[in-house]
Amino acid sequence: MSLLIVGTVAFDELITPFGESGKILGGSATYGSLSASNFMDEIRIVSVVGEDFPQEHLDLFAQKGINTQGVEQVKGGKTFFWKGKYHNDMNTRDTLDTQLNVLADFDPVIPEAFRDTEYLMLGNLTPAVQLKVLEQMNQRPKLVALDTMNFWMDVALDELKVVLKQVDVLTINDEEARQLSGEYSLVKAAQKIFTMGPEYLIIKKGEHGALLFHGSEVFFAPALPLEEVFDPTGAGDTFAGGFMGHLAHSQDISFENMKRAVIYGSAMASFCVERFGTDQIKNVDRKQVHERVMDFIDLTRLDMQLSK
Amino acid sequence: MSLLIVGTVAFDELITPFGESGKILGGSATYGSLSASNFMDEIRIVSVVGEDFPQEHLDLFAQKGINTQGVEQVKGGKTFFWKGKYHNDMNTRDTLDTQLNVLADFDPVIPEAFRDTEYLMLGNLTPAVQLKVLEQMNQRPKLVALDTMNFWMDVALDELKVVLKQVDVLTINDEEARQLSGEYSLVKAAQKIFTMGPEYLIIKKGEHGALLFHGSEVFFAPALPLEEVFDPTGAGDTFAGGFMGHLAHSQDISFENMKRAVIYGSAMASFCVERFGTDQIKNVDRKQVHERVMDFIDLTRLDMQLSK
Repeated sequence: MSLLIVGTVAFDELITPFGESGKILGGSATYGSLSASNFMDEIRIVSVVGEDFPQEHLDLFAQKGINTQGVEQVKGGKTFFWKGKYHNDMNTRDTLDTQLNVLADFDPVIPEAFRDTEYLMLGNLTPAVQLKVLEQMNQRPKLVALDTMNFWMDVALDELKVVLKQVDVLTINDEEARQLSGEYSLVKAAQKIFTMGPEYLIIKKGEHGALLFHGSEVFFAPALPLEEVFDPTGAGDTFAGGFMGHLAHSQDISFENMKRAVIYGSAMASFCVERFGTDQIKNVDRKQVHERVMDFIDLTRLDMQLSK
Repeated sequence: MSLLIVGTVAFDELITPFGESGKILGGSATYGSLSASNFMDEIRIVSVVGEDFPQEHLDLFAQKGINTQGVEQVKGGKTFFWKGKYHNDMNTRDTLDTQLNVLADFDPVIPEAFRDTEYLMLGNLTPAVQLKVLEQMNQRPKLVALDTMNFWMDVALDELKVVLKQVDVLTINDEEARQLSGEYSLVKAAQKIFTMGPEYLIIKKGEHGALLFHGSEVFFAPALPLEEVFDPTGAGDTFAGGFMGHLAHSQDISFENMKRAVIYGSAMASFCVERFGTDQIKNVDRKQVHERVMDFIDLTRLDMQLSK
């Protein structure tokens, strides 16, 4: 089993109704790999950082079994930085500052040792960069998952469609599914998206849970109602990391196991939002993950005695 | 077993992206009682209509076992009318016309034969009217459920709080739960609302499902992803009717049975939105309800083999 995550390793600065984070570790590959590390002993990441990226973060990755051989550190460069402020409802946010820095010229080089990886997670990046990753693999991975966003549908739809042809699992939110398909009904949206390449569609709905579509089948994973929703940053990437981590660990890509993977991803995301940044997901252990998964199961557990 | 629903019987005119309904039968007591009629042989309603209310609608109620003895028909009066237009996303709508007509002076009189009803559903009305209903009951019903909305929290919060003290089950949406409690977290909102009277809180989230809170327990019912969402009008009242209909029929108000009731309510609501107005819920039969409930069960069915 092997898992490769390609995405950003970044600095975030977050302002929420509950406080300010200061400049902290962020990025899709960061959240995804820390989340997946609860399921596997080695995760490979490919990303780019600047000379300002501190050793302590690299040490954290190493400690979690995250292989950073594919993380290019650009001499004299600065790490991608994003600053955002969440509104009181925590569902909407304003971007206060975006400094692409070294990400602007990110030309991913997949180390030779990573090119046979069986499970590949392509984090939200320009479709052109996602395509370059696929082109460097020695053979098509067993499973390719891709995350994207409305921005790429607006500015790079043609390229996105080329990448989608090579993807097994697409993870987007409900509005993005509607935009990509032109269909309001998520059932119809899924069917349309299946004609574009992916065989599985995961619709992430944040505090409203997640839907997994495959063929004519559908599975719904609720979101756990939480006492504290502290910071939603990275929840989607954390979900994807748990999802792919479970699949890669179990070596089983049946629909039934994908359903379990969606629950594992949801459980990891529920930890993520309870603290700032990676504070919670980097400290959680497998026992806590197990208990949280049981909370998810209990949430929809029902002994149905059908009335006549 | 007996169920009384107090609410509006009205005319609606709906404009959706899929067409216009013309002037059709609507109102919370209408949707609620038609929905409940799938679970019980007699439902009592209390409402008010004008002289313009046609016999064919009264015949429909009679045919479904809905006792309209408590529906006052005001000579020379006109029936409550609402006209609305749904936006493309079907989640938001504009009110184009509201004519309260006979509803403006609605002073509910509960027929003597209804005053011992065990299950009482108070549809969304002014809190003062809801209170008048409770005062006329011979004894406290076995279960009182109440629906309300943000408007009454804005203009009649003190009266609403008086009614809430006598209510067992409150059904509102997530934003209303946040407004009523002053808490963003729905878990905390539920705990606060429990101190106001209700022992059960149902948070209706439309296409995102429903949450049932009781003490420290929580149950999540998904919404079924549908191919066609044609008209969301009345979905909440249809949910409440199915919920109360199942409880009153089964004579069991345990938390476990309330979970089942939430699924029955959700199933009925899923039928409601597939057609204009009451077109679908007045024609559905128990076999179809049974099959739809199985679809809900399948949606979250999961054989969890926990990984270590």
